[in-house]
Amino acid sequence: MPRYKLTVEYDGTPYAGWQRQENAHTVQAAIEQAIFRFCGEHVALGAAGRTDAGVHAMAQIAHVDLTKNWSSSKVREALNAHLIVAGETVGIINVELVQDSFDARFSATGRHYLYRIVNRRPPAPLEAYRAWWVKKPLHAEAMHEAAQRLIGTHDFTTFRATQCQSKSPVKTLDYLSVSRNGEIIEIRASARSFLHNQIRSFVGTLNEVGCGRWDADDVTAALEARDRKACGPVAPPYGLYLVCVDYPITTGSGREIPRTF
Amino acid sequence: MPRYKLTVEYDGTPYAGWQRQENAHTVQAAIEQAIFRFCGEHVALGAAGRTDAGVHAMAQIAHVDLTKNWSSSKVREALNAHLIVAGETVGIINVELVQDSFDARFSATGRHYLYRIVNRRPPAPLEAYRAWWVKKPLHAEAMHEAAQRLIGTHDFTTFRATQCQSKSPVKTLDYLSVSRNGEIIEIRASARSFLHNQIRSFVGTLNEVGCGRWDADDVTAALEARDRKACGPVAPPYGLYLVCVDYPITTGSGREIPRTF
Repeated sequence: MPRYKLTVEYDGTPYAGWQRQENAHTVQAAIEQAIFRFCGEHVALGAAGRTDAGVHAMAQIAHVDLTKNWSSSKVREALNAHLIVAGETVGIINVELVQDSFDARFSATGRHYLYRIVNRRPPAPLEAYRAWWVKKPLHAEAMHEAAQRLIGTHDFTTFRATQCQSKSPVKTLDYLSVSRNGEIIEIRASARSFLHNQIRSFVGTLNEVGCGRWDADDVTAALEARDRKACGPVAPPYGLYLVCVDYPITTGSGREIPRTF
Repeated sequence: MPRYKLTVEYDGTPYAGWQRQENAHTVQAAIEQAIFRFCGEHVALGAAGRTDAGVHAMAQIAHVDLTKNWSSSKVREALNAHLIVAGETVGIINVELVQDSFDARFSATGRHYLYRIVNRRPPAPLEAYRAWWVKKPLHAEAMHEAAQRLIGTHDFTTFRATQCQSKSPVKTLDYLSVSRNGEIIEIRASARSFLHNQIRSFVGTLNEVGCGRWDADDVTAALEARDRKACGPVAPPYGLYLVCVDYPITTGSGREIPRTF
């Protein structure tokens, strides 16, 4: 059976997250439904990131096996047509035939997220459900400096949702930056994988630094506490975007080269 | 009575345009309702641009007279609080006390609009209701070149809605540019004032050029036809943004200096 890699963009606002659920509409269910309408097959998608309710994706990666050998462009066009008819805010931006060994979740070597804050006193209606509106002036440089305390391999229990299903709270955070562009503050995070709510927990904590209630040492103390209660208030989902996912590039000789961000 | 200049941002998606109407919800009505809830006064707002249903604003300008001498920040904070409670996608981003002679509509010396196209084959859910999705590849340079044919003082009957209430179809277009930034095409238009549907008519016409059905000479011919039927299909409202409005700056000596864009 041919395996297809799907690159998916979505506005997460109307969905109860990526993962299929009994009594709620999800991105995964929307795409699986479009696949069923296209070719009559009931499939189960694998995906790189199980984004929460309200979280967006610029390029979520999923994979699916189909019985028939459709062309990639046929799959893309057909799924988009069914998604549009169904009124979904999900688009399939690319489809690629991949080897059977490709797994959207387990082959991924890097995941890159963006969190957007709109930082100004008046409301920002054009950023509603696209960024977290924070009224208090935030000191982005202080946030960035504090963020560097989180980089590296740590027990991230403090920044992990209690319902997190990961076997271990130990993860390696490769990159965490905070930068301001006018009224928009962008927080970028990269790692091989993240714990449940880890980035929103980081952002909530860095927000405490930005408004001056915490300093970088408080962030270190929170990390070292290894205690969920030491975390700042978790930031809302609608500022968060899954930007892209890295996979090894297999060369002719079979050697894998990891992509850089 | 003190006169206040309001700078207003809105997501136009849920509104039947700016202007108050009998049986539809509008941006003007939303703000007038917030003013009533704030101070109990029934007012009629003047505004720089009567944007259509679905059109957005980054900085629409309105003015209002209130009986009591409120501080600007008090007016801004109170109106935003009432707009948020009412669930409106409208924000008051600035309030300024101005002279009685200031009129949001008649004092304006320049109006600047942006039209956004997302130009790619797959759908763009994160740009839904924020840009016009055009699947066919557009040649932005050809669009820009053709756009220059429209600059200057012309009878713009071709690019004017039949229901346009302007006394004359003759207007002076100061600036019209088309530029591409990745998948986004930005069309920027500036003039002292515009006819009803003028920019969306320009964009629909330039889209014909971008996909190769028309060339710059066809645009000149359409302009010279002075006939609504010569216009390309009018572009949808949700790609259009009122960016900002110019007013003369009154110096100490009373001399007016027009702002530049």
